[in-house]
Amino acid sequence: MVPMSKLNPSELGVFQSIPATKHVEPAIATDPAAFEAVVRSRRSTRVFDDTPVPELVMRQCLELATLAPNSSNLQCWEFYWVRDESKKKELVKYCLGQPAAATAQELIVCVARLDTWRRNSRLLLEQLESQQSGAPASMLHYHRKIVPLAYGQGPFNLLGPLKKLAMAILGLTRVTPRGPAGKSDMRVWAHKTTALACENLMLSLRAFGFDSCPMEGMDERRIQKLLGLPRTAEVCMVVSAGKRATHGIYTKQFRLDKSLFVFEV
Amino acid sequence: MVPMSKLNPSELGVFQSIPATKHVEPAIATDPAAFEAVVRSRRSTRVFDDTPVPELVMRQCLELATLAPNSSNLQCWEFYWVRDESKKKELVKYCLGQPAAATAQELIVCVARLDTWRRNSRLLLEQLESQQSGAPASMLHYHRKIVPLAYGQGPFNLLGPLKKLAMAILGLTRVTPRGPAGKSDMRVWAHKTTALACENLMLSLRAFGFDSCPMEGMDERRIQKLLGLPRTAEVCMVVSAGKRATHGIYTKQFRLDKSLFVFEV
Repeated sequence: MVPMSKLNPSELGVFQSIPATKHVEPAIATDPAAFEAVVRSRRSTRVFDDTPVPELVMRQCLELATLAPNSSNLQCWEFYWVRDESKKKELVKYCLGQPAAATAQELIVCVARLDTWRRNSRLLLEQLESQQSGAPASMLHYHRKIVPLAYGQGPFNLLGPLKKLAMAILGLTRVTPRGPAGKSDMRVWAHKTTALACENLMLSLRAFGFDSCPMEGMDERRIQKLLGLPRTAEVCMVVSAGKRATHGIYTKQFRLDKSLFVFEV
Repeated sequence: MVPMSKLNPSELGVFQSIPATKHVEPAIATDPAAFEAVVRSRRSTRVFDDTPVPELVMRQCLELATLAPNSSNLQCWEFYWVRDESKKKELVKYCLGQPAAATAQELIVCVARLDTWRRNSRLLLEQLESQQSGAPASMLHYHRKIVPLAYGQGPFNLLGPLKKLAMAILGLTRVTPRGPAGKSDMRVWAHKTTALACENLMLSLRAFGFDSCPMEGMDERRIQKLLGLPRTAEVCMVVSAGKRATHGIYTKQFRLDKSLFVFEV
């Protein structure tokens, strides 16, 4: 934890300064109405018909999923497209046999990894260093020095409470980032990033003319065993895909009044 | 916890049967290329230029955010669009002064609520019951009976460990949903749903010609105080909005090889 405190305030400069970069990526023209149609027509579909989802569409949607923003670009997600018939049958059972799974053409287990960030940070550094990427020094510094400090929780997450305490003390007198500190924070962190990708996945399916349903009601342990995953690979959600059956969406979309959720302050 | 065990297997029928519904909502035509352009051109933007984001665009994007799928439709999210100049200045500091916040035209604090699901479930039930919604009986039953059991964690989350234990024991012999059990699970649950909406928000901004940056590196405690939020209102991320400056995106998009993340099994 000592190095963490050293981050304040000198290392904060890494975050506050604008580096000199050469990359230019102009914003391309987009079609807001076409986008809005995708968002508005995406409904959680409980019953699918028999129309298959083309392989290429599935692969395309999975690729678009991984273009979601993610925490420190550590890409702590995994997507298991379960194609094997017997595995799929098991998976339907583990999704409590709900029609959204049982009638689905395809099922994707979306996984939040608590344990791949070190590997991914290392691989990312190799890319950034080797490919004349034009990455600013601060980005390299971030992956070399700050990522291990920020995300490391020590053996058995023992550093978690210490980090929390240190940040609470520092936080008494100065602006201090508060996490992730401990296993609960790391879980939140990994699921958050994975959910961003899940939303891309579901919207992509809709954009390509298909429907989806995100499922959280499932037997996570049995799914982990089915896929040979460790406990550090948590199931964020299972996403089913197919074309909506005539009565596959049970009701119109219900949202509570927006004054409960959106505040201008 | 006794009622939980009663859910198996009789109550599982609620999930497994397809209810008779009258609602029909045909899939509308969508434009996959237009959607893909939005996803591919969304980049985390570190520096914004001086172009303002029209009020109407902000409100539209915030509305589209709340159309994301969410857990049991409990809408456990909140969005604070911080417009007051002095509050905004404070918020930039609490985002560690990073350029993505300091140069942003607009800032939205996206909040995951651990404590609004009871209210929202009640309000939703009122809607479902009163508006001749055509909601299937199973949906009403779900909100009346299952939601309180599934999401209730008892005072001070004391039921969490008991739920975990009960589900582990049940899970030895039968397919059993594993959560949410305890505070850590509830945090994951609320942030997951909020992140789905955040992705809608960021893609929407892009679709309307603007850019965004999601920020997790921030002083959550100070932001909670600034907005008068309780500890059960956790900051999922702060999303900044504006138009990208010429060098506002530091590098091309880096993703590690997809063989690390996408598996066909």
